Amino acid sequence: MAKKNAFYAQSGGVTAVINASACGVIETARKNKDKIGKVYAGRNGIIGALTEDLIDTAKESAKDIAALRHTPSGAFGSCRFKLKGLAENKLQYERLIEVFKAHNIGYFFYNGGGDSADTCLKVSQLSEKMGYPLQAIHVPKTVDNDLPITDCCPGFGSVAKYVAVSVREASFDVASMSKTSTKVFVMEVMGRHAGWIAAAGGLAADKDCDLPIVILFPEVPFGKERFLAKVDSMVKKFGYCSVVVSEGVKGEDGKFLSDQGLLDAFGHAQLGGVAPVVASMVKDALGYKFHWAVADYLQRAARHIASKTDVEQAYALGKKAVELALKGENAVMPTVERLSDQPYKWKIGVAPLDKVANVEKMMPRSFISRDGFGISDKCRAYLAPLIKGEDYPPFKDGLPQYVRLKNVAVPKKLVAFKV
Amino acid sequence: MAKKNAFYAQSGGVTAVINASACGVIETARKNKDKIGKVYAGRNGIIGALTEDLIDTAKESAKDIAALRHTPSGAFGSCRFKLKGLAENKLQYERLIEVFKAHNIGYFFYNGGGDSADTCLKVSQLSEKMGYPLQAIHVPKTVDNDLPITDCCPGFGSVAKYVAVSVREASFDVASMSKTSTKVFVMEVMGRHAGWIAAAGGLAADKDCDLPIVILFPEVPFGKERFLAKVDSMVKKFGYCSVVVSEGVKGEDGKFLSDQGLLDAFGHAQLGGVAPVVASMVKDALGYKFHWAVADYLQRAARHIASKTDVEQAYALGKKAVELALKGENAVMPTVERLSDQPYKWKIGVAPLDKVANVEKMMPRSFISRDGFGISDKCRAYLAPLIKGEDYPPFKDGLPQYVRLKNVAVPKKLVAFKV
Repeated sequence: MAKKNAFYAQSGGVTAVINASACGVIETARKNKDKIGKVYAGRNGIIGALTEDLIDTAKESAKDIAALRHTPSGAFGSCRFKLKGLAENKLQYERLIEVFKAHNIGYFFYNGGGDSADTCLKVSQLSEKMGYPLQAIHVPKTVDNDLPITDCCPGFGSVAKYVAVSVREASFDVASMSKTSTKVFVMEVMGRHAGWIAAAGGLAADKDCDLPIVILFPEVPFGKERFLAKVDSMVKKFGYCSVVVSEGVKGEDGKFLSDQGLLDAFGHAQLGGVAPVVASMVKDALGYKFHWAVADYLQRAARHIASKTDVEQAYALGKKAVELALKGENAVMPTVERLSDQPYKWKIGVAPLDKVANVEKMMPRSFISRDGFGISDKCRAYLAPLIKGEDYPPFKDGLPQYVRLKNVAVPKKLVAFKV
Repeated sequence: MAKKNAFYAQSGGVTAVINASACGVIETARKNKDKIGKVYAGRNGIIGALTEDLIDTAKESAKDIAALRHTPSGAFGSCRFKLKGLAENKLQYERLIEVFKAHNIGYFFYNGGGDSADTCLKVSQLSEKMGYPLQAIHVPKTVDNDLPITDCCPGFGSVAKYVAVSVREASFDVASMSKTSTKVFVMEVMGRHAGWIAAAGGLAADKDCDLPIVILFPEVPFGKERFLAKVDSMVKKFGYCSVVVSEGVKGEDGKFLSDQGLLDAFGHAQLGGVAPVVASMVKDALGYKFHWAVADYLQRAARHIASKTDVEQAYALGKKAVELALKGENAVMPTVERLSDQPYKWKIGVAPLDKVANVEKMMPRSFISRDGFGISDKCRAYLAPLIKGEDYPPFKDGLPQYVRLKNVAVPKKLVAFKV
C-alpha cells in the first residue's frame, strides 16, 4: 500500500504554544518519511479542508518548522467554525472525506478544544462508514483548560504564567502608589465558563511574596456587598489590593457582570469589559482611586513569557499524535498524565475521543477558598507546576523573532465547494 | 567637616526601572563611605521627608540592594504630591530643610519627572537662602519620556519594549483568527499628553515583519471617518489590523475620546477607557469583529520584559547622580546623551535643573507619518535602540523574584508635621 499523507489543522482561539504542537506533528512526521508522506495543513483550520485550500508544509525549511516551537498564534490560520451533527451536516463531512481521498490523506490531526474533538471523532466514524478509513487523532489545545481526562491543556500553562507574573508586577506597582494615589488595581482575564485562568492570578502571591489579591471566579455568584467588604478589608490591612476578575463572572441574577448595558451619551450600546464595571463599583462605594487593565489577546499571545512546561507538553502531544497514528490508533487524543506534584512529573497518556468530545472539565469547588475570593492549597498544588520554567524566544533588536511560513498552496484537484 | 548623609526619594508614577536608579544611587554611595554617610530613603517619596518618615537603607543587605536592579515599582513607596511655589508653600520647604538638618543630610537625590525636577531645584535654592546648603541632584524617570535635554527618560524604553512586543504578539494572534472571527485588535496605551508610548507600537512591524498597524496619537486630532477608512483599507489588504490608541487621543473638539460620558443602565457615569470606544466605532461602522485590551499598569510594571538599554541607563544615571554630588555639583540632572543611532552609542551628560524644570518635551511632528497613523523613519531610528536587549529578572518556580526591602524607619527627632 502506498504511504498516506497527513492533514493537520488548528481550530478555535489560538494560543502561545499551539504552533509548538504543530512543530511536534510536522517534525515527527518528517522523521518518519518512510511511513508518512507529506503533511498538509488546512489554511484557516478545517475551512481549508472543506475548500481544498491545503498548505504544503514540505515547502518549509527545517529551520522555519523548528521556529514554530517559539512562535505564538496559529501559523496556518485558525477558524471558529463548528461542524454540526452528522444529520444536519452530512454534506460537509462527506466533502472532507472527498478532499482527503483526493489528496491521499490517511491521517487527520486536529489541534483544538472540545468542539474540534467532537468533529475529529465524527470524521473518524464517517470515514469508516464511507469506506475511506482515516486515522483521526485529536491534539488538545485550549487556554480554557476545560478538556477532560488530560491533566491540563496546552496553552493554559502559558496564560496562567502571564497572569501570575502580571498580577505580581502590577501589585508591586499599586503598592508603591497607594499612599497618595491608586489603592485598587483590577485586571480582567479570560475564562467565560471556568475560573482556571482567574485562579492563576492567585499564584502571584506565595509564601515568599505576600500580596493582597481578590479573585472573582465565574463559579461564584458575584455578591456586591461581600466583594466590597473584602476589598475594603484588604486595603485597610495592606494599604492596597489587586482584583483579578474573570470575564465570565455573573451576578446573582445569572447575568454576566460585563453585560451591564453600557450606553454612550447618545444612548448607543457600548461594548465594555467587566474590569471597568468592578472598578467603578469600588470607586462609588469606597472612594478608592483605582486603575484597571484588560489583558485580552495579550494573555494568550504572550509567547515571550510562555511556560517552559507548557511548551514542552504542547510539543510532546503533537509528537505523540503522530506516533499514535503510526501505531494504528484512531479516534484518540494524547493526554498529559500527572505522576506527581512535587517534584512535578508527567507522562503522555491516551484517551479515547468518545470520552473527550462534548465533556467540559469544570474547576472543582475545592480549588476555591472558603470565602470564594482566593485559591485553595489544592488549587495551588495543581497550578504551580504548570507555570514552571521560562522558554524565551530568540530576540533581535529588542523584538522576539517569530516565524511566518511561506504557506504554499497544494494544487486543487476538485471542484469548488461553498462553506 | 563631618561627612553628610544622603536623602533619596521616588516620585510620581513608578516604572520597571526606577529601582535600578535607586540601586545605582545606593551602591555608589556605599562605595564612597569615606565621603557619604548613610542613604536615607523617603517612605512614599517626598512625604517621607515632610513627615520625617525616613528609611535607613543601611539596614538592607548588599544582595537586596543589588536585587533592586531587577525589581519593578518603587521599593520605598512613591507619591503623587507636588510641592507648589515657594510663596504658597514656604512652610513645607522649610520643613524639608529642618528634617534634612536634623538628620545631617547634605545630599538630596530626587528620582522623578518634570514636577520633581522643579521641586528639586526649589529645595536647592531655598536651602542656600536658609543657610543650610544642600546638593540637590535630580535623577530622571518617567515612562512619558517628556523631560527635556536628556535624549530619553529611564522607564520609557521598557514600556516601549512591552508595547512593541505585545502589539507584535497580538497581531500574530488576530491574523490567525481573522478568516472567520476577529479582524481588528485595539490596544490602549499610556501617554496622556504625548504619543511616545503609542509610537512604540509602530516598532512591532519592521522590515522583517510586516504587520498592519494603525496608531492614534494624542498629537493628531482624531478624525473618525479618516480613521475608519484607514482601518477598512488595512483589513481589505491584510485581512486584519491592529490599532494602538493612546489614552490621550482627543477629538477635533479637543475633548478626550475616552471621556464619552458612558452611562450604565441606571444612568450612572462609568469610567471607560478609549479602547472600547474606538472598538465600538469600528464595529458599528464596518461590522468587523474586534477584541480590545487596556494595558494600564501592566505596561510600566513589566520588568520581566524590560529593555536592557533602559535598565543600564537607569542604573548609570543613579550612579552618576552620586558622582556629581561628590564632585560638588548642585541643582543638576544627569542626562542620556546619544552619540549615534547605529550602532547605538550613548554617554551620560549633565543638565542644569533650571533648564529642566517645567519644560515638557513633546514628540516632534516629524516623528509621525504623513497620514498621521504611523511612525516615520526618523522616529524608528530614535526609538529602536531604546528597546534593545533583554534583562530578565531571576525566576523561581515560574515567577520573577522581586525583592521587598525591610524598610526600617530611622528614629524621629522632630515634632510631628501635618502634610
